[in-house]
Amino acid sequence: MNNFTHISDIEDLQVAVKEAIDLKQDELKFKSLGKGKTICLLFFNNSLRTRLSTQKAAQNLGLNVIVMNFGSEGWQLEFEDGVVMNQDKSEHVKEAAKVIAQYCNIIAIRSFAGLTNKEEDKAEQVINSFKKYAGIPVVNMESAIGHPLQALADAITMEEFKTKHKPKVVLSWAPHPKALPHAVANSFIEMMQLKEAEFVITHPVGYELDSEITKNSKIEYNQEKAFEKADFVYVKNWSSFKNYGKVDNIDASWMITSEKMKLTNNAKFMHCLPVRRNVIVADEVIDSKNSIVIQQANNRTYAAQIVLKKILE
Amino acid sequence: MNNFTHISDIEDLQVAVKEAIDLKQDELKFKSLGKGKTICLLFFNNSLRTRLSTQKAAQNLGLNVIVMNFGSEGWQLEFEDGVVMNQDKSEHVKEAAKVIAQYCNIIAIRSFAGLTNKEEDKAEQVINSFKKYAGIPVVNMESAIGHPLQALADAITMEEFKTKHKPKVVLSWAPHPKALPHAVANSFIEMMQLKEAEFVITHPVGYELDSEITKNSKIEYNQEKAFEKADFVYVKNWSSFKNYGKVDNIDASWMITSEKMKLTNNAKFMHCLPVRRNVIVADEVIDSKNSIVIQQANNRTYAAQIVLKKILE
Amino acid sequence: MNNFTHISDIEDLQVAVKEAIDLKQDELKFKSLGKGKTICLLFFNNSLRTRLSTQKAAQNLGLNVIVMNFGSEGWQLEFEDGVVMNQDKSEHVKEAAKVIAQYCNIIAIRSFAGLTNKEEDKAEQVINSFKKYAGIPVVNMESAIGHPLQALADAITMEEFKTKHKPKVVLSWAPHPKALPHAVANSFIEMMQLKEAEFVITHPVGYELDSEITKNSKIEYNQEKAFEKADFVYVKNWSSFKNYGKVDNIDASWMITSEKMKLTNNAKFMHCLPVRRNVIVADEVIDSKNSIVIQQANNRTYAAQIVLKKILE
Repeated sequence: MNNFTHISDIEDLQVAVKEAIDLKQDELKFKSLGKGKTICLLFFNNSLRTRLSTQKAAQNLGLNVIVMNFGSEGWQLEFEDGVVMNQDKSEHVKEAAKVIAQYCNIIAIRSFAGLTNKEEDKAEQVINSFKKYAGIPVVNMESAIGHPLQALADAITMEEFKTKHKPKVVLSWAPHPKALPHAVANSFIEMMQLKEAEFVITHPVGYELDSEITKNSKIEYNQEKAFEKADFVYVKNWSSFKNYGKVDNIDASWMITSEKMKLTNNAKFMHCLPVRRNVIVADEVIDSKNSIVIQQANNRTYAAQIVLKKILE
Repeated sequence: MNNFTHISDIEDLQVAVKEAIDLKQDELKFKSLGKGKTICLLFFNNSLRTRLSTQKAAQNLGLNVIVMNFGSEGWQLEFEDGVVMNQDKSEHVKEAAKVIAQYCNIIAIRSFAGLTNKEEDKAEQVINSFKKYAGIPVVNMESAIGHPLQALADAITMEEFKTKHKPKVVLSWAPHPKALPHAVANSFIEMMQLKEAEFVITHPVGYELDSEITKNSKIEYNQEKAFEKADFVYVKNWSSFKNYGKVDNIDASWMITSEKMKLTNNAKFMHCLPVRRNVIVADEVIDSKNSIVIQQANNRTYAAQIVLKKILE
Repeated sequence: MNNFTHISDIEDLQVAVKEAIDLKQDELKFKSLGKGKTICLLFFNNSLRTRLSTQKAAQNLGLNVIVMNFGSEGWQLEFEDGVVMNQDKSEHVKEAAKVIAQYCNIIAIRSFAGLTNKEEDKAEQVINSFKKYAGIPVVNMESAIGHPLQALADAITMEEFKTKHKPKVVLSWAPHPKALPHAVANSFIEMMQLKEAEFVITHPVGYELDSEITKNSKIEYNQEKAFEKADFVYVKNWSSFKNYGKVDNIDASWMITSEKMKLTNNAKFMHCLPVRRNVIVADEVIDSKNSIVIQQANNRTYAAQIVLKKILE
């Protein structure tokens, strides 16, 4: 594998999921694979799980890790071609990417959506510029429109907890006071489209995600109907895609409650975290034995580790 | 040892002090103890000595170290139960603590007192929440009301510099322009209560510390009288406990001068640092040969190392 | 070598350059040299190349690396003697330097010029205070008036790309919207004064650098004349030295264009980066095959590594 910027960069998702589960039995098995090599983790945004799990995964593979908060520790980057750089930005990504590539063997990047300009976000300027200029493998730690490491961890988690060959999986929108990106939902959908499952997306009318991503995935606007007989309920807020980046709806009736979970087939509750309790999900649900959010977070290490392993090999 | 959040978590202080002093002879002796294990250092506040010495101690034990400035790099945490999280805080400590525990073997935390609400600070919400939810060992790198790694380093330093079995040790308040927490003074007192010494606390009237901590320790309001025949003078400012978190007194006559040190039995001068020169202590004292503040800071490494060693074992 | 705060700390520049080039063939050759030792990288200012390359170099030598952003993570430092520290600064460099030296074997420091007080900047208060008090080797990662690691990388790069024994090297000023320090230009000049080359400095009238540094180096105010038959064009902006720290001139005609490069002997284009495209240099020049800025950045690792190697030995 050369880059991991999209879930489709993994040749065979099902095989990778199995390898990741095997890896959990002996996470230091490939300790010598990264010896003498370095990964740079570049954060343009805050992070908890991604920051820690990717470091852990890299250390498990024997990689040296250099973490950099690009916004506060480096220089403001210009991404446009041909600009006269006489304003605030003091370095062009052409130089930054090529230079960083001199000091490491893999670059991992987190750069969230701006949520103000749909076309800019869809262009994935930051991660694509690094891919274009770095000349070394680039890993997506959440870009403007995708979070494939999360989706891979989700796939691992569902594989571990599923009780039937073809489970029913519901991706449900839930309300949130602030505008959130579409990245997690997008990558979850793209991952689900590769799996054998009955997959349903549910959200209020007007909260449709990018149809280029949802494609033929089933959309059910009635949340309760969507929950019927579900084996997994995956919850996530996103801001409007149509009215780009806006919070049009904070309808509290979309929060996940135990009442709603009763409609399911004893479904497991999933969320990528961080999660706002009693806004996205009631305490009673996230604190229930059916909540697997912690196991899901734990799998972030093994998702990152299998990706880095494939890149190193 | 499971956690180290209070000096009393050490079973036998005197033995631990001796072990730490032995460790200084060969600080890499237990290099393989932490192999393949990871410690996360979580900073909610600034740090110099704690940040560097704890990293050094962990590396001496072969641990992988992940440092995170929680405030600027992560998400704002909610600590209250049952809250509808529709304000600024985007993650509950229940998830944060459990998640971080997936990625490491030990969590060390620095989270200072807010100094606005006495009961909240006394409840030690941050460190106690991590202890409650993480399920792995938690180390206190200065909490709202205690700084036991500092107290342990202080004990090591006094053991190295004492010239008699039962020295006289004075903890003296000194003036400071800004409100400082009680953590260092509290832990120093609790540590002294475990040692054979003649221990005296001196401070202006009204600057009494929490009586649940000072207990029967002697308080002498006359600083000069307290200094008489002292073998160690340990200086520290703290804000008012009664008039909680306020700076009621900046009486410069409480500054430590060489004149005052002449009242002592050639006492060693100690301070946890950072220290404001010519406010807390005159240059002539901190620059004198009796000042052991640098050796004291050096012992922070061995205090942390003996604690981490006991946790790993 | 005890400290590396100035290019003259290297006993024989030409030998060091050769050693660095050899090192590139097997960068992990001295992996065991730093074993069990620690370097602290202290940043008082932002950094990309220096941050990453110095970490890389240290890891190549087997050193443990502790990175600290002093401004945001530590305490504000006082550097003056005898001050009553009752204002914003909570720690004196006397303690800070001595304390940090307890936790590591080498201290590397970045602290830019303030550009408001010429005498203060020339006094190099930060790095000289650390040198004075730390008692362990100190490495300059760009100080108020010098950036010798950059100059050493520049020397390595010129050695690799030169096609004649005594090349013509031009240091050219170029315009920039904000006030920049003199450090890079100063160290480049001091390095060039140690080399066999025809060295010319070109800049607008009034932009003379410190004559104590330029000494007898040739200054040519006509940029085009300076470029004639040049083998290397090294470009850098600096603010006025005379009208200290001011931007008196942003004359766009000083930008490096391909037209100007045609006056040279097919010269290589060099810049320390970050560089503002189409302000300092036209896209056509930095994107040309004669641009060696990336190779120059890569040599930052080997400059740092040869310096750290000499200190460790």
